Amino acid sequence: MEKSYESIKNYIYGKNAILETITKNPKRINKIFFSQGINFDNKLKKINELAQKNSIIIQFTNLNKFNRLLESEGKKINFQGVVASVSPVEYVDFEEFLNTKTNKFRKIVILDGVEDPHNFGAIARTLAAASFDAIIIPKHRSCPINSTVEKTSCGAINHISVIKTNSLPSIVDTLKKNDWWIIAADGQSKDNYFDISYKDMNFAIILGAEGEGVSKTLLNKADFKIKIPSNFESLNVSAACAVIVYESIRQIHQM
Amino acid sequence: MEKSYESIKNYIYGKNAILETITKNPKRINKIFFSQGINFDNKLKKINELAQKNSIIIQFTNLNKFNRLLESEGKKINFQGVVASVSPVEYVDFEEFLNTKTNKFRKIVILDGVEDPHNFGAIARTLAAASFDAIIIPKHRSCPINSTVEKTSCGAINHISVIKTNSLPSIVDTLKKNDWWIIAADGQSKDNYFDISYKDMNFAIILGAEGEGVSKTLLNKADFKIKIPSNFESLNVSAACAVIVYESIRQIHQM
Repeated sequence: MEKSYESIKNYIYGKNAILETITKNPKRINKIFFSQGINFDNKLKKINELAQKNSIIIQFTNLNKFNRLLESEGKKINFQGVVASVSPVEYVDFEEFLNTKTNKFRKIVILDGVEDPHNFGAIARTLAAASFDAIIIPKHRSCPINSTVEKTSCGAINHISVIKTNSLPSIVDTLKKNDWWIIAADGQSKDNYFDISYKDMNFAIILGAEGEGVSKTLLNKADFKIKIPSNFESLNVSAACAVIVYESIRQIHQM
Repeated sequence: MEKSYESIKNYIYGKNAILETITKNPKRINKIFFSQGINFDNKLKKINELAQKNSIIIQFTNLNKFNRLLESEGKKINFQGVVASVSPVEYVDFEEFLNTKTNKFRKIVILDGVEDPHNFGAIARTLAAASFDAIIIPKHRSCPINSTVEKTSCGAINHISVIKTNSLPSIVDTLKKNDWWIIAADGQSKDNYFDISYKDMNFAIILGAEGEGVSKTLLNKADFKIKIPSNFESLNVSAACAVIVYESIRQIHQM
């Protein structure tokens, strides 16, 4: 599949995030920086071993210099002894994704205005856990895929295809023309998320930003609008995502 | 119900968190600080109005001084123009909770070692949304209920009874003696979270810290052990909580 590249932020940190990336996608890693004088635990040993196996340059250094590069905004980052310089995230082309032949139904999530990296990372982690096929985000009003996303997602961002688009409405139109079903989260809906069936179909779940929700244009295009019943406020968007995604998994498991 | 008090952190900030607290529980608020020269939007006007109605002292000041008090560790807090000095959270006594007469089944969550305030706040928000009755945390290895929790939970922490205990195992024993069912999240379990029934019973869901999971002692006491199926790592604990809690809600709704 052809990839388009975009330069965003070129460092990741944390043992789990780096171990995940070097295992799954070693070509993304340009160089690994270990903290000077660090004791290698099992995870760091594994990273070191895989770096050598994949001919990745290793350097021992004072990691504090990465605080500035990672734009930590004065917050002290716990690097866990290791930082990696990486190639920017690889985005998947939508048309190619759509036209990939598969013999199973596919499931994706569309994020309409979710800009918080913690939420984005948590959502990527849930989608990887649930074997969803892709996540679609708009070029504007979306979260940059940076080291916070990479760490919060525990590296899950490498396990799922990310598609970036100039126009969510036209993506949704194309999906519909190709027999995908569009499900939008909408607090005003009469139907609960468990009132609809997710079985035997390709579907996309659209989630909006907290407070604003999914935009009217996309709501109007949706085949189903669903809510999560609540006696307080709406759920946090990553919690809402987990609830809806796993309801689809439950239904498919219990077929 | 008698409350026991514990002094932890005495300020909350953010328009939503303060509006929620002053609406639901105005007695907790001792004083409100607005940023000097701020323009009052609708939420700030409402806070001001409720403060006057409840005879709460108001002061205009430079909010930066709260950075130190809130132990922001160098991170610049976005106060959104308002800080409130509050009484410490009120904890509910376990025996009184247990002996409260109700004509419905009750649902609680027990957190075994969840120390991250963002996760704790997100969990409180989910439990308030799902009308769970209480959350039980241990005195040690738990998250202090501070302003991060209050803000992350969107004030939900005021909507749910929090019970703090010296001994989770003895709490679980007491629940079992009182005909409660104990459900523990366990990645090694054969049963999925949707394979068991949550209907027609009082139940407690035990969630453990990420990585470590629920302690062996508690796992051995559980009536059911359940997992969330995943093709990646386990879910984040607040996402896992949302998935399991809402499966119980779905089952009860769809009775």
